[in-house]
Amino acid sequence: MLNQQEREALCVVLVRARNSSNIGAAARAMRDFGFRHLRVVNQFTPPFEAARSAVDASEIMTSAQIFPTVASAVADCTLAIGTTAVGERSLQHQLLELPAAAESIRAELAHAASPTPRVALVFGSEKTGLSNDELSHCHWLLTIPLHQVEGERHVSMNLGQAVAVCLYELSRSAQHTSPSPGSTATETPANGEALERITRLMSRVMEAAEYTRRHAANSDPDQVRRLVRRIGVSEIDAPIWMGILRQILWKLGVPSRGD
Amino acid sequence: MLNQQEREALCVVLVRARNSSNIGAAARAMRDFGFRHLRVVNQFTPPFEAARSAVDASEIMTSAQIFPTVASAVADCTLAIGTTAVGERSLQHQLLELPAAAESIRAELAHAASPTPRVALVFGSEKTGLSNDELSHCHWLLTIPLHQVEGERHVSMNLGQAVAVCLYELSRSAQHTSPSPGSTATETPANGEALERITRLMSRVMEAAEYTRRHAANSDPDQVRRLVRRIGVSEIDAPIWMGILRQILWKLGVPSRGD
Repeated sequence: MLNQQEREALCVVLVRARNSSNIGAAARAMRDFGFRHLRVVNQFTPPFEAARSAVDASEIMTSAQIFPTVASAVADCTLAIGTTAVGERSLQHQLLELPAAAESIRAELAHAASPTPRVALVFGSEKTGLSNDELSHCHWLLTIPLHQVEGERHVSMNLGQAVAVCLYELSRSAQHTSPSPGSTATETPANGEALERITRLMSRVMEAAEYTRRHAANSDPDQVRRLVRRIGVSEIDAPIWMGILRQILWKLGVPSRGD
Repeated sequence: MLNQQEREALCVVLVRARNSSNIGAAARAMRDFGFRHLRVVNQFTPPFEAARSAVDASEIMTSAQIFPTVASAVADCTLAIGTTAVGERSLQHQLLELPAAAESIRAELAHAASPTPRVALVFGSEKTGLSNDELSHCHWLLTIPLHQVEGERHVSMNLGQAVAVCLYELSRSAQHTSPSPGSTATETPANGEALERITRLMSRVMEAAEYTRRHAANSDPDQVRRLVRRIGVSEIDAPIWMGILRQILWKLGVPSRGD
């Protein structure tokens, strides 16, 4: 089971949720499983406002935060995981099924030292899921294994139920705790804000070096964002990379615009 | 994972569900996880009739059966499991937490020879759960482990979410292999030769951009080599990074020397 500090390190991010009762259901599932940081990405506040009063998880709804973009919602997070129903979209991210994904997330939560959220679990809108741009802010994706019947319409879950299932699996006591993967075990990874700054600097270096013009396919902003997230930049190394990129921009005669 | 015959051997029994949208949500979760036998115990048909049209799981709703009592709903089942939020009620049944309960249920489903349901998973009404009389028709009980805070009102789950979580756990493959996310673990990492080429290119970019002159401490060849190895570049991404670095060198007017 997760301890309190580990629970505090997770936030649930609902992107463009259309239905206030789904926001309420997500909040209720969070309360049921002991998570309390809810972030809502919405350009329109109405569905959120309606949900505030509609739900039996008032503390979570009251303290929920609204963000204009996925980038800002995950800016202070070191790991952002997108949820997807897979479907036909071509996936350029690594995809884990929920049980395996939960193990990795628990490992990251166990290393979260700070009281602010460090891991974001990102859910898309009921109808369309997460867009490619929204997905590009995520390090990898998780999917809940569903029963697909060949030739039938692709199945996807109700938002409130999907949140409940994910949080259940996260809370589920793991039989065997597996040692955590990769760099996360030893180094604190850079957070979303730092990665986004590196991404912006990278894009401008590529532009200034005329890489963008020659290799347009590798240069679209989502591509660069994914490229940067696929490498694992640590919190300590992030300023070094930013410094190198700024210096290249300076040498190429491009102002670094405060990034 | 359960096979088709095992899925066929389970029925979900909703007792005195008051809210038609909850019946719909339960049916939808059944469809998502590949179960299709829904039984509803209701003395009044209205909520059920309303749900028939309301839901995106029409086949399940159309073939759902209505029973007047729990006894009749589980009459043809060899195992009936009641679900409960525990609470204060004195339990006279054996109680298993969901992960352990699912194991027992799967074992029973594996023995179900007949095409008709043999195992009933019984859910009570949203407000009051299952009565003692209704529970008495169950062989044992399962509960979803929730986050209870001492001194606070007892937590129970939304019906649709509870059904989803139970069916997820039942469908969850017992043995999960855990591939680890994060670039290095599952993607083939770039080999030493590729990393060394990236390191050389990086060093020359840093030199040409005058980073080396300004930040000598970060620029000694071993430092750069470690910096490059700390990020996890995959085999697939390595040529992209080399291409970007070569392009920067070209733009800075430095020949790339075949690296």
